[in-house]
Amino acid sequence: MSVSLTGCRLALLAPIAWPTPPSGYGPWEQIAFNIADGMRRRGLDVTLFATGDSTFSGRLASVVPAGTNEDPTLNADVYTALHIGRLFERAADFDLIHNGFDWKPLTYALATVAPPMITTIHGFSSPPILAAYYAGAARSFYCSISDADRDPGLDYLATTYNGIDPEAFTFVDRAGDYLLFFGRFHPEKGAHLAIEIARRAGVRLKLAGIPHDEAYFRTAVEPHIDGDAVQFLGHVRGPARDELLGGALALVHMTTRPERFGLTLIEAMACGTPVLGAATGSVPEIVVDGVTGFTCATVTDAVARVPELAALSRAACRERVVTAFSTERMVDRYLGAYRSALALRTPPAPSPERLAARRHDWWDRPMAYTDDPPHAAHQSFELTIREAHDDSVVGKPPTGS
Amino acid sequence: MSVSLTGCRLALLAPIAWPTPPSGYGPWEQIAFNIADGMRRRGLDVTLFATGDSTFSGRLASVVPAGTNEDPTLNADVYTALHIGRLFERAADFDLIHNGFDWKPLTYALATVAPPMITTIHGFSSPPILAAYYAGAARSFYCSISDADRDPGLDYLATTYNGIDPEAFTFVDRAGDYLLFFGRFHPEKGAHLAIEIARRAGVRLKLAGIPHDEAYFRTAVEPHIDGDAVQFLGHVRGPARDELLGGALALVHMTTRPERFGLTLIEAMACGTPVLGAATGSVPEIVVDGVTGFTCATVTDAVARVPELAALSRAACRERVVTAFSTERMVDRYLGAYRSALALRTPPAPSPERLAARRHDWWDRPMAYTDDPPHAAHQSFELTIREAHDDSVVGKPPTGS
Repeated sequence: MSVSLTGCRLALLAPIAWPTPPSGYGPWEQIAFNIADGMRRRGLDVTLFATGDSTFSGRLASVVPAGTNEDPTLNADVYTALHIGRLFERAADFDLIHNGFDWKPLTYALATVAPPMITTIHGFSSPPILAAYYAGAARSFYCSISDADRDPGLDYLATTYNGIDPEAFTFVDRAGDYLLFFGRFHPEKGAHLAIEIARRAGVRLKLAGIPHDEAYFRTAVEPHIDGDAVQFLGHVRGPARDELLGGALALVHMTTRPERFGLTLIEAMACGTPVLGAATGSVPEIVVDGVTGFTCATVTDAVARVPELAALSRAACRERVVTAFSTERMVDRYLGAYRSALALRTPPAPSPERLAARRHDWWDRPMAYTDDPPHAAHQSFELTIREAHDDSVVGKPPTGS
Repeated sequence: MSVSLTGCRLALLAPIAWPTPPSGYGPWEQIAFNIADGMRRRGLDVTLFATGDSTFSGRLASVVPAGTNEDPTLNADVYTALHIGRLFERAADFDLIHNGFDWKPLTYALATVAPPMITTIHGFSSPPILAAYYAGAARSFYCSISDADRDPGLDYLATTYNGIDPEAFTFVDRAGDYLLFFGRFHPEKGAHLAIEIARRAGVRLKLAGIPHDEAYFRTAVEPHIDGDAVQFLGHVRGPARDELLGGALALVHMTTRPERFGLTLIEAMACGTPVLGAATGSVPEIVVDGVTGFTCATVTDAVARVPELAALSRAACRERVVTAFSTERMVDRYLGAYRSALALRTPPAPSPERLAARRHDWWDRPMAYTDDPPHAAHQSFELTIREAHDDSVVGKPPTGS
């Protein structure tokens, strides 16, 4: 039975680091915009909760006047709390809440009588945030952004791959003559591996992005920059970005940490540029091996694939985005998730396997590792209530689990 | 008409940086414990929300196993959100909520159908948090910890001075021979002024506390330490702290930022030690000028008072704490506030003057200044909802107000 969603009063909670949509960087805000605008066009009654300087052809609700990353005088902690609290304050006005702002809104949802809620998990930044997702699982449905980026302790309503508007990217039918690294300079993003691949394959490499880990950039990247074989372009945006993506022979995406989704992959493919990517995380779900690029287990594998890149069909790359990773396909997937959430109302009880996974060591998660995170002695997310009897005193519980 | 509070189901939300009560530092946790334990003794049905390693002769509810400042592997952001969310999740189980955890719970209260709520404002750390207090004013009653520490945009139910157990401090009837600075080393706490006063008065000075602002400590404090006229004792706690407070001629408390309450003042007075304090903030409310110390407008005033300190009645200092700043008096004051909150149920609408103050420049607050805070272009705490009509686009509002 299909539930009509026309007129469905949807509250969409966007992040507030940047406006929705962002003018430059801001992937979560961009996706939130794509969903809000897509749902509006599909006839839902959308209220977008975002920064006041966002632009939306629908109803915009805001507490914070601008992005907290745009205006350093805005206290991000205070405005995050008010942004979320103000949505839940009027939860009764909506038929459905879609949370695009990570884990914190889940803790507000616990305390609110509210309609069905869906949370997009954009990725687990570190093991401790599992506490919030496990607590919120009783209250919110979850969507993952790839099949790979799922936690064994959680149930998911759907995989809702991120989507972009292919028309926003210029298709280039001719294979370029340089490899491209595009992303943050951080060991897990693998710029150093892109450098090694380009050097061994004898192909020019262009590097674009922000030095997120400056020590890494100075030691592992900068010494290789010569302005010719290895070129550094810094932060590239707007039309220059489109041109850079489209002009490449391939995007090199040899991440050492499993990618959660990888927006740049589909942006490159929308331009016709194939991907030379690591065979880990979401990459094999996005890149059709041998068709829209190659998924490689090792640097040596990747080097061997470089001569084959020019022969790949650039039209197939773009077609892959249009059919699988467009905004419209993303909106379709979310509409399916919305229908399921409205039919079920509340998440079903988790299986014994899920509950066991929640007790299992949280630091034992391939998707959840961070830069040398401290391993926690404690893992907890439920409320423990202890009573003192006969003038005894409660407290000092045993540690662990 | 007096409302009986026996059996009143009170949820008390403590901070989670330290256990409640703390074993060492942790003033807010200590006050939360004093309230919880006092209310329990007065016959209320108290549930204390605190860290799992807290100790309480009543009902203890916890999500986080230990203090987030005790165990660096605990994510303070996640556990703060869960700690607060878990309380509001069961808000319907209580007759009254007492929030001892600053501003963040107000944003949860906005979104929750809950019983009357009281928030103790322990002080405004910086102007931006006014946004949360102004938003929360529709939902929570407020208590200030001194008459001085009040914001012109807020209504308060009561001033509920902090209270301590005088029996936990040893009364010393003989005037000591040294001045004492006890607190964080930060310019606003005035250790440099204590040094100047002691030097000009020709009396020894003992300095105890943590170098909070290390650059300040190195340049303004350390050069004066000679182990004789100016002695540095570091972080002093437990019995040594009691002895140090009781053995002093006076506590020097020449803060440059208006003190919000000043727990150390009443701890020193409980030992019989008078206070040589700045005539600003809460100090004139705590110290009876000429009886339990002197409130001084300038360093020169303070120097002139040093010879008079030994003649003050140390018994009067202790008596001041017993009659005005004991735990029992604090509990009495909160009981009065609880009765008012239960009678009123929700805060009354603010006056036009209060509303005007909320729009007035937040950085123009004597109590609210911080270390060189950036002055915000924007001030907002209410939700703005804008509709796009006729395919127009909403967004980009004017800045200001």
